[in-house]
Amino acid sequence: MSKGYYIGIDVGGTKVLTALADEKGLILKKAQEPTEADKGEEAIISNIKKSIDRVINNSPITKKEVKRIGIGSPGPLDLEKGLIIENSNLSWTNVPIVEILEEMTGIPVILENDANAAALGEKHFGAGREADNIVYITISTGIGGGIIINKKIYHGGKGNAGEVGHMTLIPDSNYQCGCGNYGCFEAVASGTAIARRGREVLNKERESLIKDYSNNEPDNIDAPLIASAARAGDEQAIEIFKLTGRLLGIGISNVVNLFDPEIIVLGGGVMNAKGLFITELKASLQKRALEANLQDLKVKEVGLGKNTGVMGAIAVAIGESLY
Amino acid sequence: MSKGYYIGIDVGGTKVLTALADEKGLILKKAQEPTEADKGEEAIISNIKKSIDRVINNSPITKKEVKRIGIGSPGPLDLEKGLIIENSNLSWTNVPIVEILEEMTGIPVILENDANAAALGEKHFGAGREADNIVYITISTGIGGGIIINKKIYHGGKGNAGEVGHMTLIPDSNYQCGCGNYGCFEAVASGTAIARRGREVLNKERESLIKDYSNNEPDNIDAPLIASAARAGDEQAIEIFKLTGRLLGIGISNVVNLFDPEIIVLGGGVMNAKGLFITELKASLQKRALEANLQDLKVKEVGLGKNTGVMGAIAVAIGESLY
Repeated sequence: MSKGYYIGIDVGGTKVLTALADEKGLILKKAQEPTEADKGEEAIISNIKKSIDRVINNSPITKKEVKRIGIGSPGPLDLEKGLIIENSNLSWTNVPIVEILEEMTGIPVILENDANAAALGEKHFGAGREADNIVYITISTGIGGGIIINKKIYHGGKGNAGEVGHMTLIPDSNYQCGCGNYGCFEAVASGTAIARRGREVLNKERESLIKDYSNNEPDNIDAPLIASAARAGDEQAIEIFKLTGRLLGIGISNVVNLFDPEIIVLGGGVMNAKGLFITELKASLQKRALEANLQDLKVKEVGLGKNTGVMGAIAVAIGESLY
Repeated sequence: MSKGYYIGIDVGGTKVLTALADEKGLILKKAQEPTEADKGEEAIISNIKKSIDRVINNSPITKKEVKRIGIGSPGPLDLEKGLIIENSNLSWTNVPIVEILEEMTGIPVILENDANAAALGEKHFGAGREADNIVYITISTGIGGGIIINKKIYHGGKGNAGEVGHMTLIPDSNYQCGCGNYGCFEAVASGTAIARRGREVLNKERESLIKDYSNNEPDNIDAPLIASAARAGDEQAIEIFKLTGRLLGIGISNVVNLFDPEIIVLGGGVMNAKGLFITELKASLQKRALEANLQDLKVKEVGLGKNTGVMGAIAVAIGESLY
């Protein structure tokens, strides 16, 4: 393990979370800035820069001691060129983020898919520490995945492996996915799918708290609203979460049958409502996955909580010397 | 690459195919014996032994020069213990094949899942030579898979990775799989599924060559019969293969989205009828897989033909020195 300091950056739609850590991933300093995504590329870059300066300036470490910066972003990315081809949270297309940050800081920068980074962070610092092969699945507005094989991120032939959200789960579904297809895992079992099923309740005769809470206005409906209705006992909302749990279990069983991981790590905003679907998820996984692959399989929640993203970026920055 | 000679054994339900090769996989001698699976464990082992003796005795190589024997078998297996937990082709349960063959020959033996072995063989000697990451899929009475990551077999945490046939493809299907679940890839798109759809034609009013060819006898129907009917222009048989092609394309697109391989290698008996479904397979793959993952993806047929199994076993025997 080579000594030194590393910076991880998690650029979200609303805030930039940056941390400075040592070669073991111990955080020395954290900083948070607003992303100001609506103000455009320059403003966002400037906020990232501010957060980098803050973690360095508020620590006893000098810039020269920082070996690398890791940054996670949703894709598609061109990892070799250090290019963000598209990041819809930031409305970015073709931003050469590695070049920009390297010129700005003089520190080497590594770009990684955010779900892959999170998976690596969970492997080395979080819920996956005891295993060599883990799959991280984030259930949020979309469904993303990161695959760790032999302690490292598995990128596949062209860097696009782990697109868990775009496996077809229901071939004849009329739920269209952002990718254009129908019936993708993400189209039928994400937070977006939960909201969509909630909106369908508005068109039914039957009474529902979903109608009350949303004032019958489709635009007011999101997964947290359905979760509130379910917690208040609304049967249709409860059924939406149960169905989501069953579908999540099927999608996860496919991953388990293909990758035979030791640990599945689940993250993402929808997990905040896990009490409403985890029983169905586990039952459906148990039913669908092969017995041999289920044996000793652990299904865990992220161990790093809200720091999964930034710790993932730090893991990416530390890189080879982690292993 | 360490010099030496290696033996590969492919034990099928009807014949044992054994080959002796050098460290580059060049075959010096091949031998075929009947399996005589119905005569029980001792007879099968004795036939395997005969085939080993024959390849050695009919070559200028002495037993001492043979470094290792590789043997492929359908699972479940316990690779660490060298145990065949179950091989339904041979009606074997809990056969410690490695121990048996090592005692019998005095040569170290390695056991591997047959689809994994075939994948490794195709990677090093067949259709996958130019790539580091390939997925081999065999479409036969079942659907099996072998995953090669960074030139090596990917086993997963407990040795059960690559169970392509048991990903759920149609959650609400009433086609039950051998594993007990419903709607597995293998349950809806294998040769067995083709035959099942053919049998359903017998219950329909509509005329069909499937009825003629089978004399309305369900037991006479198998995938080759449906293929003959399709080739003779029977519309229902043609539609069965087109549907199979579409489903194969969806299953393969899931593999492509998850693993991002450089090459998909397709094998197995159903591929003999590829003219009846390959257009639908490719169209459905094209539609379902992510654009980034499709780029430069090659879909190939096995390069080793009927030797895929035995060359896979040789690749397993050669092992590390292949890479």
